[in-house]
Amino acid sequence: MSGTAAGGTQRAVVFAGPGRAGVGEAPMPSLDVRAAPGVLPRRCDHGVLVRTLATCVCGSDQHTLHGPGAVPGMVLGHELTGVVTEVGRDVERVRPGDVVAVPFNVACGRCANCRAGLTGHCLAANPSRPGATYGMGEGFGGWAGLQAEHALVPYADFNLYVLPDADQARERLLDVALLGDVLPTGYHAAKGARVGPGSTVYIAGAGPVGLACAAACRLLGAAAVILGDFNAGRLEHARSAGFETVLLGAGALPDMVADVLGVPHVDAGIDCVGASDAAVAGAGAGGAGEVRPAAALNDVVGVVRPGGAVAIPGVYPAGPPGARPALGLWLGGIWSKAITVSAGATPARRYLDELASAVLRGGLAIGEVVRATPVPLADAAGAYERFGAGGVSKYVLIP
Amino acid sequence: MSGTAAGGTQRAVVFAGPGRAGVGEAPMPSLDVRAAPGVLPRRCDHGVLVRTLATCVCGSDQHTLHGPGAVPGMVLGHELTGVVTEVGRDVERVRPGDVVAVPFNVACGRCANCRAGLTGHCLAANPSRPGATYGMGEGFGGWAGLQAEHALVPYADFNLYVLPDADQARERLLDVALLGDVLPTGYHAAKGARVGPGSTVYIAGAGPVGLACAAACRLLGAAAVILGDFNAGRLEHARSAGFETVLLGAGALPDMVADVLGVPHVDAGIDCVGASDAAVAGAGAGGAGEVRPAAALNDVVGVVRPGGAVAIPGVYPAGPPGARPALGLWLGGIWSKAITVSAGATPARRYLDELASAVLRGGLAIGEVVRATPVPLADAAGAYERFGAGGVSKYVLIP
Amino acid sequence: MSGTAAGGTQRAVVFAGPGRAGVGEAPMPSLDVRAAPGVLPRRCDHGVLVRTLATCVCGSDQHTLHGPGAVPGMVLGHELTGVVTEVGRDVERVRPGDVVAVPFNVACGRCANCRAGLTGHCLAANPSRPGATYGMGEGFGGWAGLQAEHALVPYADFNLYVLPDADQARERLLDVALLGDVLPTGYHAAKGARVGPGSTVYIAGAGPVGLACAAACRLLGAAAVILGDFNAGRLEHARSAGFETVLLGAGALPDMVADVLGVPHVDAGIDCVGASDAAVAGAGAGGAGEVRPAAALNDVVGVVRPGGAVAIPGVYPAGPPGARPALGLWLGGIWSKAITVSAGATPARRYLDELASAVLRGGLAIGEVVRATPVPLADAAGAYERFGAGGVSKYVLIP
Amino acid sequence: MSGTAAGGTQRAVVFAGPGRAGVGEAPMPSLDVRAAPGVLPRRCDHGVLVRTLATCVCGSDQHTLHGPGAVPGMVLGHELTGVVTEVGRDVERVRPGDVVAVPFNVACGRCANCRAGLTGHCLAANPSRPGATYGMGEGFGGWAGLQAEHALVPYADFNLYVLPDADQARERLLDVALLGDVLPTGYHAAKGARVGPGSTVYIAGAGPVGLACAAACRLLGAAAVILGDFNAGRLEHARSAGFETVLLGAGALPDMVADVLGVPHVDAGIDCVGASDAAVAGAGAGGAGEVRPAAALNDVVGVVRPGGAVAIPGVYPAGPPGARPALGLWLGGIWSKAITVSAGATPARRYLDELASAVLRGGLAIGEVVRATPVPLADAAGAYERFGAGGVSKYVLIP
Repeated sequence: MSGTAAGGTQRAVVFAGPGRAGVGEAPMPSLDVRAAPGVLPRRCDHGVLVRTLATCVCGSDQHTLHGPGAVPGMVLGHELTGVVTEVGRDVERVRPGDVVAVPFNVACGRCANCRAGLTGHCLAANPSRPGATYGMGEGFGGWAGLQAEHALVPYADFNLYVLPDADQARERLLDVALLGDVLPTGYHAAKGARVGPGSTVYIAGAGPVGLACAAACRLLGAAAVILGDFNAGRLEHARSAGFETVLLGAGALPDMVADVLGVPHVDAGIDCVGASDAAVAGAGAGGAGEVRPAAALNDVVGVVRPGGAVAIPGVYPAGPPGARPALGLWLGGIWSKAITVSAGATPARRYLDELASAVLRGGLAIGEVVRATPVPLADAAGAYERFGAGGVSKYVLIP
Repeated sequence: MSGTAAGGTQRAVVFAGPGRAGVGEAPMPSLDVRAAPGVLPRRCDHGVLVRTLATCVCGSDQHTLHGPGAVPGMVLGHELTGVVTEVGRDVERVRPGDVVAVPFNVACGRCANCRAGLTGHCLAANPSRPGATYGMGEGFGGWAGLQAEHALVPYADFNLYVLPDADQARERLLDVALLGDVLPTGYHAAKGARVGPGSTVYIAGAGPVGLACAAACRLLGAAAVILGDFNAGRLEHARSAGFETVLLGAGALPDMVADVLGVPHVDAGIDCVGASDAAVAGAGAGGAGEVRPAAALNDVVGVVRPGGAVAIPGVYPAGPPGARPALGLWLGGIWSKAITVSAGATPARRYLDELASAVLRGGLAIGEVVRATPVPLADAAGAYERFGAGGVSKYVLIP
Repeated sequence: MSGTAAGGTQRAVVFAGPGRAGVGEAPMPSLDVRAAPGVLPRRCDHGVLVRTLATCVCGSDQHTLHGPGAVPGMVLGHELTGVVTEVGRDVERVRPGDVVAVPFNVACGRCANCRAGLTGHCLAANPSRPGATYGMGEGFGGWAGLQAEHALVPYADFNLYVLPDADQARERLLDVALLGDVLPTGYHAAKGARVGPGSTVYIAGAGPVGLACAAACRLLGAAAVILGDFNAGRLEHARSAGFETVLLGAGALPDMVADVLGVPHVDAGIDCVGASDAAVAGAGAGGAGEVRPAAALNDVVGVVRPGGAVAIPGVYPAGPPGARPALGLWLGGIWSKAITVSAGATPARRYLDELASAVLRGGLAIGEVVRATPVPLADAAGAYERFGAGGVSKYVLIP
Repeated sequence: MSGTAAGGTQRAVVFAGPGRAGVGEAPMPSLDVRAAPGVLPRRCDHGVLVRTLATCVCGSDQHTLHGPGAVPGMVLGHELTGVVTEVGRDVERVRPGDVVAVPFNVACGRCANCRAGLTGHCLAANPSRPGATYGMGEGFGGWAGLQAEHALVPYADFNLYVLPDADQARERLLDVALLGDVLPTGYHAAKGARVGPGSTVYIAGAGPVGLACAAACRLLGAAAVILGDFNAGRLEHARSAGFETVLLGAGALPDMVADVLGVPHVDAGIDCVGASDAAVAGAGAGGAGEVRPAAALNDVVGVVRPGGAVAIPGVYPAGPPGARPALGLWLGGIWSKAITVSAGATPARRYLDELASAVLRGGLAIGEVVRATPVPLADAAGAYERFGAGGVSKYVLIP
């Protein structure tokens, strides 16, 4: 009840200026959404209110902190597990008290794209273009962020995954918390790279997305998964989770792969670095007409066998409307080896049921793999800083 | 050299009358194949000779012992791992000394079916109809059985999988020995039943094929695999290998499934029983116009959810030419639940590379799962008897 | 407005006793659904009201007329094209004046099955079991039939296909009218039988479903489509539409196929006959424990090549709860040829966008192929009779 | 007989200096291949000799004329239809007198790649790297070109498609002649771009490959196919073949697409231009470190809808070993729209059976679509010139 009272406030992680996140007061969510920083007003009878159990910090949050869409006071975050406290009048399949996982894309479930499983490009949830998410401002649909004590989830029947056993969900909260983004992101990439039983895989980037992707590859039956990174600490954790590693810069990548596999190529390559993080890896998107090499991606292309596949979960921004920022890609490598490339954000809802089954019935300990680390919501600013500095952990904020 | 000397003999498992296998003398193989019991003469410059390291006993051997195609003195068996001793003049990719795994289907690699991956229905290897194998007599192409000290493998470049590391192959012989039949058979069924990450699976029959299928389901990411059998000993072993079990006859199958999963249905169902073994399960193919229910299969259909899939690796014979023996199938269950059914022998060659990688790189301990048990070739008769009596082991004959 | 006035009536096709359809008065539809013959009451704020432009007669209507679920006065029919007259408060993507095509399955778009594309097995639209449709009574969800001047379509945002050009839709009404059932039914079967470029196909049954399936096969690139039937008139029309035909009973099916193709087998076989119509083809579901052969289906199995596929759009009823009526199937033929079988009703919504594009942009003249024949709604009884007697036409009722 | 006589010569199209093709004398082919310009010696008991009926000129021949691999006197060409005159001792499935179509990739049918259908990357046919073809010199395996009166085809059982009816093959020679390259190239691209029933497609480049691709899209059920080119003559022919067209440079591509479709995007985009021809389209591979935009490809990316797919049959060379020439690609467009990209040469053998069925049984008039134009072999030089100058025709050389 009080959850929807006009004028109430709550604690939330908010944008506190370029590159900075802080914990502050934000409006309590309501099915009757009012305008707020980064939030567009609308009525959501198809939505539910959720009390947060866990909400994660993601690499994309760093992009938001440094990007043009953030406005002061805007609530951040797009990963949430919680308890339903109120349901809209049009909601049929979710009830108060349900423990739910929230996919990070906002999707209506009714448009042509949602029907086709392209929930990352919903035609209804964002007035400005296909695709919406939480906590990234009006350009992404104007939905309040989820790093807060309470949150609104629209189109709840379609979007939410209701955990079959609330007690089990709470016990395994650090696994369940990863169902909304990092696990489906890694899984989508592994499937896009056509990983299957017996596959050999090279993954560029051993952060949370790389690790989740490695776990997904193993779930799909991969025989060998090699993670590459410049950060030795990340690689040490990757090895402790049972994966192979190569320290980038210590030699030619094909040679290091050959040391592991006996052959200098893999069936599948996955770029978990992307453009905006690629400075770390010695590359990046050029500004002012400069075309810089897509270094991590070209490395991945170079090590994939003929007929293999590459997936790109790492973010390459489209650029502002009209602009088409170019990166220097070794297209000839892709062409001559007849490689298939798939890219883009995962449509997380598509995979939620099967991944929840893998976690809950099958025992996939995804929290351990990505080193899920609980942090009080009040300490979110520190978690953001440690994550931004290349920390090994996936931070899970607990209100 | 002596391997191809005209007139030489060797020890082999031979058909010794209806239902009986024995160990006796058989002709040494030659690239210039001469007529012998169950063997058609032909020149095989595309073939190689192999010295046996391991050769397995299979449920299909029981069918051969009781079927119309066996002739006295015929060498049995169709599963082999060995060392190449001689190569035909047209062989380019296999060399003497290579340790090789032999898929049980004989396939030319050149006809339309082989090109399409349907190596179980090769158009060239059997003059009487599509599809050939070893050790089943002229109706199956007239190729000598592989349960012998030495064997001929035709179309060697296409058929053989050359183990990348001969020492590793010998160390893991009880795993590698299963690459030719039981593992790809189980895997083909798991894929036919569309098993993937998070899937729940029911498998009818906990013999070696059922167990190999369960291992394949796990490899493909299944979250829960339930094996059903009337034989409590088999189920005990299945549990020790980490699978769920239900004792058939102890209750209604959907209820027992619900006890395990919380819901009375599964995503995928797999019939590893088939017609000729179905007497054990209370069913069977009717003779003389009688139509008996396909009991195991109908059970599987009954427990699969709408939109799910069923695979049938268990053998249902086509019957003699012209006859079309009918079994009483609950077609309405398949139709009303929109179930997809796939059936038939696996085209083993299609899966060999990826399964070998899963075993050798990925550590799949398939030998333990199916309880691979080495037996001297000289003791083959006893192994046949124990297997025929419903034993839990997969027998691997070692010359 | 008046469309939802309590107590209003309209003209509709109603069940008039076993085997008989008549035109009578029925309640005007309302978003606040009231109990009526075969209709369950519920509130449908997610629904819209539609004024009928065209509504078709289907083979399934015959099943309803002879089945246990029909009650006197129940409105029949499940195929509709019309103009939206009123939208519920929760509808976002459909507006009054839109011309819409209605898929015959009622689906919520929010449950696990709908999300997975299994709209024929919606978990929400039928309280008694998964899957719902219109005009078949309470066992199918209790939704009023669509052969009426006006109709309710629930979950409208998800279910409806809005024609992009209302004028074009009216001009091509006899094509558009087939988007809701017969075209997606044939298409689903063609895809289930893995028809593609160059395929050869045998279709059992040259009624509207068989013809729509043939059109779908051609759309998918089939090189040769052969329709088989005992009804020479149907075959004559099939030939005029450009397909090959064989008159069943005039010879052995493989021989007749060989006369057309040069080989006695096809890549894909499709059973558009099913159980309840199979008496025509000399087969049928046995009662009282009798198992009768699945004649049309066994013919299809017999003529498909090894590695081919069979689809079964023809209806095989599940039988009453607890019963599992068996049909005598040549399982050995399926097994020995490693045939894949897919069965069941089409999830029509899944295919609507692409099929509408094929009809409207691509010029697919599906109306001509299935001989769509407009009939005044007032003359529906005669259309039912002619269809039941094996007529060649697909009747489209125009209010 | 005389075909294999040592020392005989024949008329053939040969490399006559950079950019120039001529007709000259070349060695008669033999199963015992002797060294010759661009030809590596080897024994081919698995091969056959073929007397040419038709041999085509391809865009790739232009690359060869201007590339580093051509040596004086080297026979050109890789597309052939002919009559078998002699078979090697290891050949089982091809007989003298057979009329055969030759896929342009040389593939052994025995290696891991060939078994997996990757016949464009055969591990055996080229000692220097995976993948081989005819008439491109030692870097491509050292196989003599096919634009000659007679030719050798190695691994004949696997490679050759034997036309089922030799008379029909001769009657439809201008269609059959396209089975070896341009039709499977276009088809592979259409499938790579996931074209299916109802699809809308944009194809960059209206030369023979673009037209063949358009025909393949139509075969796969596309509802609308739009070809774009700067060459108005090519577009005129495309329209006469029933396709939509846009004249590049006359406006913004999305606007021109919207004029045709009503929406400014397509489901599938196909780049039939590639790097080396892209100068025509205003783009190209930069030399000396310069990165030039992949203009045609970026246009294609720009016009594909979210969730759509792009295929690249146009050639982007890998560059010399060690070099990785980069092109400026709008990766952010691919990523933000979650587009799947497939690239590379077609494995032609994979598609031959189904495409031959589409042509011979289904009546696909591919010769008309690509404007196949017969030219005497003696006039080959002129055909090369006209083709190089952007002519509309696909030239088919007839000895």
